[in-house]
Amino acid sequence: MLAAELDNIETLKKEVNISKILFQSASNEKKNAALENMIEALEKNRKKILKANELDLKSAKLLLDSGKMNISAYNRLKLDEDKFRDMIDGIRKVIQLEDPANKKVWAMRLDNGLDLYRQTCPLGIIGVVFESRPDVVVQISSLMVKSGNIVIMKGGKEAQNTNIILYETITKALNSTYGMPENVVNMILTRHGFQEILKLDDTIDLIIPRGSAEFVKWVQENTKIPVLGHSSGICHIYVEPTAKLDEAIKICVDSKVQNPSACNAVETILVDYEIKDKILPELVKKLQENGVEVRGCSECASMLPDIELADEDDWFTEYGDKIVSIKIVRGIYAAVRHINKYGSRHTDCIITEDKDIALAFSNNVDSANIFVNASTRFSDGFRYGFGAEVGISTNKIHARGPVGLEGLTTYKYLLYGKGQTVQEYCKGEKHFIHKRLI
Amino acid sequence: MLAAELDNIETLKKEVNISKILFQSASNEKKNAALENMIEALEKNRKKILKANELDLKSAKLLLDSGKMNISAYNRLKLDEDKFRDMIDGIRKVIQLEDPANKKVWAMRLDNGLDLYRQTCPLGIIGVVFESRPDVVVQISSLMVKSGNIVIMKGGKEAQNTNIILYETITKALNSTYGMPENVVNMILTRHGFQEILKLDDTIDLIIPRGSAEFVKWVQENTKIPVLGHSSGICHIYVEPTAKLDEAIKICVDSKVQNPSACNAVETILVDYEIKDKILPELVKKLQENGVEVRGCSECASMLPDIELADEDDWFTEYGDKIVSIKIVRGIYAAVRHINKYGSRHTDCIITEDKDIALAFSNNVDSANIFVNASTRFSDGFRYGFGAEVGISTNKIHARGPVGLEGLTTYKYLLYGKGQTVQEYCKGEKHFIHKRLI
Repeated sequence: MLAAELDNIETLKKEVNISKILFQSASNEKKNAALENMIEALEKNRKKILKANELDLKSAKLLLDSGKMNISAYNRLKLDEDKFRDMIDGIRKVIQLEDPANKKVWAMRLDNGLDLYRQTCPLGIIGVVFESRPDVVVQISSLMVKSGNIVIMKGGKEAQNTNIILYETITKALNSTYGMPENVVNMILTRHGFQEILKLDDTIDLIIPRGSAEFVKWVQENTKIPVLGHSSGICHIYVEPTAKLDEAIKICVDSKVQNPSACNAVETILVDYEIKDKILPELVKKLQENGVEVRGCSECASMLPDIELADEDDWFTEYGDKIVSIKIVRGIYAAVRHINKYGSRHTDCIITEDKDIALAFSNNVDSANIFVNASTRFSDGFRYGFGAEVGISTNKIHARGPVGLEGLTTYKYLLYGKGQTVQEYCKGEKHFIHKRLI
Repeated sequence: MLAAELDNIETLKKEVNISKILFQSASNEKKNAALENMIEALEKNRKKILKANELDLKSAKLLLDSGKMNISAYNRLKLDEDKFRDMIDGIRKVIQLEDPANKKVWAMRLDNGLDLYRQTCPLGIIGVVFESRPDVVVQISSLMVKSGNIVIMKGGKEAQNTNIILYETITKALNSTYGMPENVVNMILTRHGFQEILKLDDTIDLIIPRGSAEFVKWVQENTKIPVLGHSSGICHIYVEPTAKLDEAIKICVDSKVQNPSACNAVETILVDYEIKDKILPELVKKLQENGVEVRGCSECASMLPDIELADEDDWFTEYGDKIVSIKIVRGIYAAVRHINKYGSRHTDCIITEDKDIALAFSNNVDSANIFVNASTRFSDGFRYGFGAEVGISTNKIHARGPVGLEGLTTYKYLLYGKGQTVQEYCKGEKHFIHKRLI
């Protein structure tokens, strides 16, 4: 359902609540058939879709030329033959994933003839809001269909022509699939409509915002619906005295340079006081050779006069760029304290050859992802082998860290009896056996 | 830490954040030692504790006599030798439970020498607010210690003397345990202090309210912290045409009568039109014999003139008493529609001998607990074999249904490498193998 106007929100609400019930127990075969139809329809409409994207690019070019849009936003908006192929490949990969719903994940025999199962099921209705990349429409739709959820999407205005034709193509394909309910994929076009969506805490089970840290924070503050995501990624590497120094430098450079704008890029490197003279000059040199601006604590800056002095704000900053801050710390607990104070509980790494120190670090750092001797950039659903990534969560509730399809499900308890009453167990006529089956 | 005054909230916040880090990786041995010390200290102070309770009972008696407190609240407040023994037994049972934290629950080899683990860990800091039963102080403290969490409790004013001495006894016992951080168990005494606690969404990970439906709803509406619980328990039984009628009646009576004020007691019985004449007279008779007031839909009431007519409000009502409403429905989908519309997503049951119908019911009812041929009263953490119950959740996010110790944990990802960078994998020099280890 395409809800362009506020008037449609009430209708949308009713419709998705009906579709949710019809869709929640859909079989893997049916969902995969729907995804196959999606691929076919997108292939068939390729030219039309690319043409709509050209229209969006034309308007965007004006913004680009007048300095109102930056080149990376413009590039993200662009849907070319290569990206189109990747988009289709993405759906194929989702088809191959295991069905995250309708799985019995735990079972207990309460008594003979009284068996309890915990079975996964879709969350229900999920809101997703994202910025300019139109290929996200296809990616999100395929993840939601595979997990049995209803989705209400809101894309960026600048990609509206592409988003609408993608939405229409997908919806037609889903509706042509035997047994699929209507309105599995829904799209909101206006900002006002999106604000109304945020109020539907009696209907929407989860909101997934994809965008800048400020935007995610804004969503978190403006809805009572649970939000899956992270508002910032302030990741740390602590180089401990026993670290192999060449390895430490290699990991620091990769964590910053490989993709400086990623949320899992390192922002602050903590170097232990004991090894500062041995590593700092080489580390800073390598970072600078890779085009990284280095800012250091006063102790650091006094050692290396060609780096800028970091201030308190730096430790709280996600640069999202080729800038890194370095601080000299005295021992693991100073490192842990810094990370727990300034970090964003996303991904933090220690470089060490001492297993006990590694254990203390992982026990005491309160983050979703804790790495020993590996680049922070590994913190990602695909690299983790989930086959898909819905987002990275710094929440502790529900899903934490990179979130795959599993994060789009919940569970229900199913109890199969033969007429048992609780009174029989309270009176001692019958006794629980509580035997785990799964 | 006992925070009686608002001034203490800021100090409390700092202290619990320190204790959280120190406590989160505590071993099962250490936590059990602390629980053993708790038992010893409570036993030693038994007389003092019972005396403090007498003081609370004295004030409560005045309220009772003047009609400002009902007898069941008065009884809940009372801590006698029997309840004291149960309280101690409760701690012993918690000691025997498996440690829910520090468990590796999933593992993936990303590449040789690059292993990823998902390990459970405590949520961190949990707020619990409850009404008059002082034994809850002990129960909650033991669950929090076992799961490695810091707790901030707020009990009812009417139990203040008992709560304070229980809190002091527990804290002394925990602090005397080797290696335990301070301030694991904390207590707020004022309502104002509790309101301040609800604002600490940067510190507290979860709020567990135990009290009336209105109170839980009030908490949900007045905090940005995730709330674990259910505001109401409107449970249904649908008697399907293939049901064994004697079994259906037995289950309906047990579900209402065994404990009418429990959240998992049945409130509405849906009887299929096809069997109405065969079951309704006997069902209503048995309910009435057990002191249950029966209210029925108009069709029902015209059949049985001695029952009251239910109105629209009845279907939305959790009576919490020996009252039940009965509605005649036409087929399973009418039953499902009624349950999804009027229910509270807590526990719903079908009585049927048809497996396909049972499957359709469990697929289409959107509730935490779905039962086939068993009393709704089985919906309980102890009966489910969890060994402990933190509460029953009708949320879909994080934990659903009866929640045991597992619901007080989250997880972190731990990645152990040997200096790998992401660039090596992006350039194709190395390849992920993604082999599941656990």
